[in-house]
Amino acid sequence: MKVPDEIFQEVFASIDEHQNDFIATLKEAVSIPSVSSEPNHRQDCVDMVMWTKEKLESIHVAVQVIEAGKQKSSEGQVMDLPPILFGVLGTDPNKKTLCVYGHLDVQPAKMEDGWDTNPFELTEIDGKMFGRGATDDKGPVLAWINAISVLQEKNIEIPVNLKFVFECMEESGSEGLEEALQRHKDDFLGNVDMTCISDNYWLGRNKPCLTYGLRGICYYFIEVKCARQDLHSGTYGGTVPEAMNDMVWILSQLVELDGKIRIPGLEELVAPLCDEEKKIYDSIDFCMEDFQSQISANALLKDNKAEVLMNRWRNPSLSIHGIEGAYSSPGAKTVIPSKVIGKFSIRIVPNMTPEKVDKLVITYLNDLWSKRNSPNHFNAYPYHSGMPWVTDFTHPSFSAGARSLKRVFGVDPDYTREGGSIPITLTFQELTGNNVMLLPIGACDDMAHSQNEKLDRFNYVQGTKALAAYLLELAE
Amino acid sequence: MKVPDEIFQEVFASIDEHQNDFIATLKEAVSIPSVSSEPNHRQDCVDMVMWTKEKLESIHVAVQVIEAGKQKSSEGQVMDLPPILFGVLGTDPNKKTLCVYGHLDVQPAKMEDGWDTNPFELTEIDGKMFGRGATDDKGPVLAWINAISVLQEKNIEIPVNLKFVFECMEESGSEGLEEALQRHKDDFLGNVDMTCISDNYWLGRNKPCLTYGLRGICYYFIEVKCARQDLHSGTYGGTVPEAMNDMVWILSQLVELDGKIRIPGLEELVAPLCDEEKKIYDSIDFCMEDFQSQISANALLKDNKAEVLMNRWRNPSLSIHGIEGAYSSPGAKTVIPSKVIGKFSIRIVPNMTPEKVDKLVITYLNDLWSKRNSPNHFNAYPYHSGMPWVTDFTHPSFSAGARSLKRVFGVDPDYTREGGSIPITLTFQELTGNNVMLLPIGACDDMAHSQNEKLDRFNYVQGTKALAAYLLELAE
Repeated sequence: MKVPDEIFQEVFASIDEHQNDFIATLKEAVSIPSVSSEPNHRQDCVDMVMWTKEKLESIHVAVQVIEAGKQKSSEGQVMDLPPILFGVLGTDPNKKTLCVYGHLDVQPAKMEDGWDTNPFELTEIDGKMFGRGATDDKGPVLAWINAISVLQEKNIEIPVNLKFVFECMEESGSEGLEEALQRHKDDFLGNVDMTCISDNYWLGRNKPCLTYGLRGICYYFIEVKCARQDLHSGTYGGTVPEAMNDMVWILSQLVELDGKIRIPGLEELVAPLCDEEKKIYDSIDFCMEDFQSQISANALLKDNKAEVLMNRWRNPSLSIHGIEGAYSSPGAKTVIPSKVIGKFSIRIVPNMTPEKVDKLVITYLNDLWSKRNSPNHFNAYPYHSGMPWVTDFTHPSFSAGARSLKRVFGVDPDYTREGGSIPITLTFQELTGNNVMLLPIGACDDMAHSQNEKLDRFNYVQGTKALAAYLLELAE
Repeated sequence: MKVPDEIFQEVFASIDEHQNDFIATLKEAVSIPSVSSEPNHRQDCVDMVMWTKEKLESIHVAVQVIEAGKQKSSEGQVMDLPPILFGVLGTDPNKKTLCVYGHLDVQPAKMEDGWDTNPFELTEIDGKMFGRGATDDKGPVLAWINAISVLQEKNIEIPVNLKFVFECMEESGSEGLEEALQRHKDDFLGNVDMTCISDNYWLGRNKPCLTYGLRGICYYFIEVKCARQDLHSGTYGGTVPEAMNDMVWILSQLVELDGKIRIPGLEELVAPLCDEEKKIYDSIDFCMEDFQSQISANALLKDNKAEVLMNRWRNPSLSIHGIEGAYSSPGAKTVIPSKVIGKFSIRIVPNMTPEKVDKLVITYLNDLWSKRNSPNHFNAYPYHSGMPWVTDFTHPSFSAGARSLKRVFGVDPDYTREGGSIPITLTFQELTGNNVMLLPIGACDDMAHSQNEKLDRFNYVQGTKALAAYLLELAE
């Protein structure tokens, strides 16, 4: 039975009233530096999970804390993975069941990387709330909790049963999650009819969207070692074949200036572009100039909208992230680094698979290395990976999402894909056998993974409304 | 008048007795993290200078604290340079005056770089005293103070007047020192007859040496910037020409696998090798296999002793030190670094000069960049430099040094050159117009600038004896 319009209005008004409380809660969440990639922040990850458990329990969710197993670092150190939260709210056999996924961990962030404010203290300036995790993904996770708390406060029946999966390793390949979901495929996930994830971004700053495709990722490490320990470049310079020299050479062989990936066979894996698909890109509301000026880039790799969108959504790309073990601080150090680890990743798209890509990449790197003829120690290996994902956006969950966004923002959303990877999207689709929809809350300029990550107050509040409306729109 | 042998024996015995006190003092010095290249350690540098001032005053040195001026960081931050210590001990017009130089600052060091013990806590294991600065250069600086304190305790007249110059910016290009010495060329330095510096290493682990040559250095920064701030590689990968891609390419164009520097014109600046010089290398006591196995290198760039020594001492070498601004931590981060600074340096030799080398290098880098045809922002510039130095090792100061080493170690020292740079050596030679001698205390495996830097207790104690003996041998 359709929910009357007045109910929506009542809910939206209440969310407006509660907005400062919602921001206070987000501030608490941001203050926990749950950086999953850095072992010294592992306890913060656990703290973040337990903090979220309390928040879920405050809206009457029955929460299970799922142990995620052990993690072995590249140095051989063994650590517990942060636990995963499974939650249940409502078990009415006459209702459909919606599964909500989010993540509680964040990318690394330090003041000296160039933040204008403390990354772990949510700081609102002109309606922009700056803080690591504000938009990726603590804000969206809390928006769900906010939305449900208001529906409960107003005694409005939620037309679906809800299940929650909140993890704290997403920024590190969601280690342990897939195994946990696999184990609970038939019980916890057994009756899930659809999944909704809010962990991506609007295409622009003004218009909401629903997302039906994501690129996957294949992340690689290349190790080169020339000595047992770092050497003084005065005493040893000119005597040993230096690891950094090999490293910059091999990294320079990966991609052309124009972004073309040099790895043979990779391009052939990409799904061909048909005329029908090409048209979609032409009609999407996307401004290249805005996109470029937001990041102050001197140039883009492509000079028309369709090609830029295709390069973001449906073509692979290769990025070199950095080198571990070399000198990276300000100033000068006259060191010959002994062991360096180059890091790069490839965003993959249909019909690429990590298995095929790994094989091509590692073969290419090993071939390069044998051509190099360096006496140094070399090892190249895949670090983590995730499949790309594309789904059917005519599913009823997408229709409900579109209606809810129109209610809140007054416009029909764009149907978009994303350049980023949320590998778990595909896992939910495969394990539940049902539709997954991405309903983003953050804007394109939120700078996830970067310095000065932020979430606009407007998007946080309206996003909370959109999620509440989506739940009501799921009434049949 | 020659000092009688018994006096030497008395001094040596006293140094043996005091050795644990001398180590306690070194432990104090190492505990002050006087890292000159890192602005957050600037106060520690000042503390280290003032700590040393007290030690000098305890042996009756009249100390002047010389302000060294301001330093401007690459981010435009202005900081005070740490002050320089000028000291005077003895003003007898009938004696010659020896100037002693040393430095109080150290290279960066962090446990996570791979130290087995806290780098700022001197830790003795099996006679090896591990700690940042133990051998470079806090141990040698304290060996001078130890030696003099014992001579004073025993009421033995020092046959020379002494002057001391101790700075705290050596690891950062000795910024401010040359200007200070220039200002005091005619007063403080006016009557210096010879200079002795203990800031390098034995060629091996067993035999002492005196050093008459050093390579210079030219250190370069290359900046590439592709965006205002770091970007998410999912959202932006495939759209912008990435700075890291340009960076690894340009760094890969600097040096061949065999160590040959690619910069045109550089090789032509190197002083030609005559047959007479070539013979020196053949006769020096140096074991290539030891040299290689100490650092566990898979191979050396040259396969015979003379060529290895020439590559260390009389040929230029180029080392890539690292990249600032890229991801350098363990684990994975899916970032496109926006601004990266590649750092490399060239060890220079006679007849190269920084002026000539800078010109060739910057021209080469700019030419490379125009060939690259990248739209990104590029800037390559010299960061700091120092001239190479070669001197006459038949000077009386060298003879006194050789006699003192023979007394302590029982063998004649090798006459060596060094691959490293102590640019101030040349400054002393030029400003005093007199001889400079390098008398190293540390062994070849002390791992200065590296993880697990150490000074052997044996070398610290015997080195103290050698410096005391040298002072006595200077009697005419």
